[in-house]
Amino acid sequence: MHALILGAAGMIGRRLVDALVDTGQVGGQPLTGLTLLDVVAPTAPEGVPGPVRAEAADLSVPGAAEAAIRDRPEVIFHLAAVVSGEAEANFDLGYRVNLDATRFLFEAIRAIEGYRPKVVFTSSLAVFGPPFPAVIPDDYILRPATSYGTQKAMGEMLLADYARRGIFDGIGLRLPTICVRPGKPNKAASGFFSGIIREPLAGQEARLPVPDTVRHWFASPAAAVGFLTHAAALDLTRLGTRRSLTMPGVSATVAEEIEALRRAAGDKAVALIRREPDEAVMRIVETWPAAFDTQAATDLGFQADASFDAIVAQHIAEFHGG
Amino acid sequence: MHALILGAAGMIGRRLVDALVDTGQVGGQPLTGLTLLDVVAPTAPEGVPGPVRAEAADLSVPGAAEAAIRDRPEVIFHLAAVVSGEAEANFDLGYRVNLDATRFLFEAIRAIEGYRPKVVFTSSLAVFGPPFPAVIPDDYILRPATSYGTQKAMGEMLLADYARRGIFDGIGLRLPTICVRPGKPNKAASGFFSGIIREPLAGQEARLPVPDTVRHWFASPAAAVGFLTHAAALDLTRLGTRRSLTMPGVSATVAEEIEALRRAAGDKAVALIRREPDEAVMRIVETWPAAFDTQAATDLGFQADASFDAIVAQHIAEFHGG
Repeated sequence: MHALILGAAGMIGRRLVDALVDTGQVGGQPLTGLTLLDVVAPTAPEGVPGPVRAEAADLSVPGAAEAAIRDRPEVIFHLAAVVSGEAEANFDLGYRVNLDATRFLFEAIRAIEGYRPKVVFTSSLAVFGPPFPAVIPDDYILRPATSYGTQKAMGEMLLADYARRGIFDGIGLRLPTICVRPGKPNKAASGFFSGIIREPLAGQEARLPVPDTVRHWFASPAAAVGFLTHAAALDLTRLGTRRSLTMPGVSATVAEEIEALRRAAGDKAVALIRREPDEAVMRIVETWPAAFDTQAATDLGFQADASFDAIVAQHIAEFHGG
Repeated sequence: MHALILGAAGMIGRRLVDALVDTGQVGGQPLTGLTLLDVVAPTAPEGVPGPVRAEAADLSVPGAAEAAIRDRPEVIFHLAAVVSGEAEANFDLGYRVNLDATRFLFEAIRAIEGYRPKVVFTSSLAVFGPPFPAVIPDDYILRPATSYGTQKAMGEMLLADYARRGIFDGIGLRLPTICVRPGKPNKAASGFFSGIIREPLAGQEARLPVPDTVRHWFASPAAAVGFLTHAAALDLTRLGTRRSLTMPGVSATVAEEIEALRRAAGDKAVALIRREPDEAVMRIVETWPAAFDTQAATDLGFQADASFDAIVAQHIAEFHGG
């Protein structure tokens, strides 16, 4: 099977490429080729028994989607997106990348007679908005409180309609907030959830813009990649009309994050967290829900991390030699 | 106040024009001008104390939305849409008219510095999809089962995001199925709900494609116009984050419709209903819900018809001289 990854140079995209190449599998079949696209050219991996194309592409430009699928990939991972903070700050960019590019992709698939790939679309918890119940079921109303959430919710709706019409076989995964996100902070308003673990572990100060009581829903990078590869191999007739699912995660407060950091790296690491309340971040974070009933996803075999300690341990193992 | 009506030549649009001109009011203020647009040129009414522009326009063509708002209407009624059966049969047309044209309008408003009209958007019960509870609350998940419903749900999401950002003051009204719809049948899959009343009252045969047990949610044309004029005058800060509301209606089964017809026009009229089961229509109608909790709309002063008999009586008074 040939796989296309849109957003292949991103943090999850790169790990997904590694996972596909390492296992030599995608969608339960041997991997026979890869198309890797992103706004910057992704690195072409070694060891794929077939063609590999790794190119820079702006999928919000008309024609780019047609070029993206010219090798007729059987599995398409659509991870390309502008993150929440950036979509809120730049109205045009958010709609162009998060909505228009998604629709261009779906339309490009529709235009090809007899082509019916599997599309794995990454959505977000930001499709939900307040007021929230304590635990949010999969069938909770999509009432996004940000432009990013609006764009993802619209993407979910398009996905469901195109899938219902048999244009492709589609599934949307509402990823938990990825933690610990490695590397530099991006423009996601959720960035501090990773920063307060990552920076202290590297001996650096981290800013905490929200109170300790803020609760959130987390998955490690490895768990996120696991969701994507599992989705690609899943029999999607099992989804019924519910095409987008909240992925299982670890529910933890900022205080619980900090205690996990303390258990892993001691008081000295925790002392590097500097409290700097930020109203703008708090206003966005307040619109995010904290805990979910993900029985549907669990029944379909999607697996969360074991605990927040396990999330921290995974980051330490990868970046600090265990 | 200057009002713009998109879809002004349609059944509801024409009645809305009449209501605005008859009362000389819109949004609780004197009516000072009208822009009336539709795919066919609407009739320009007499008696408006100000400019009236009535023109044919295709709002899904780039530039048309900018021209539509060139008089800076303070109130915009967006009724223009391709109906459910047509949007299901013609994928491109449905997305172009129901989604793209709506977005073009919202973008045209956004482009004008300091312009912040009130936008009254007509949505649909088709934003909901099965499985349904017996009674559907306003906060029920939007899970459309048709392309039409998908397009309307996406319109609701855009409306909420643009309104949240202060680009305009917006409200979405999920209209019940209009009954008795006068004139010829249109391509809406719901057309028979009106046909089985309208045709027999005119001494003609009507086809009934679904079983008597099908329950649906109805409003008369007059009630629908009432929702629109009420919305235009409403203080929309009362909506909070719930920007789109299900309008109150009369819940009735096909059997109850037929009994109301019998009470108004006797067995001879009822005998003109010919049962012709149609799987394609039934498949669409099955995806529609039957009854709603519209307390939020009722609290805001939106008013339903008194009964299905009242709906029939209104049609008889208008078209058969009482």
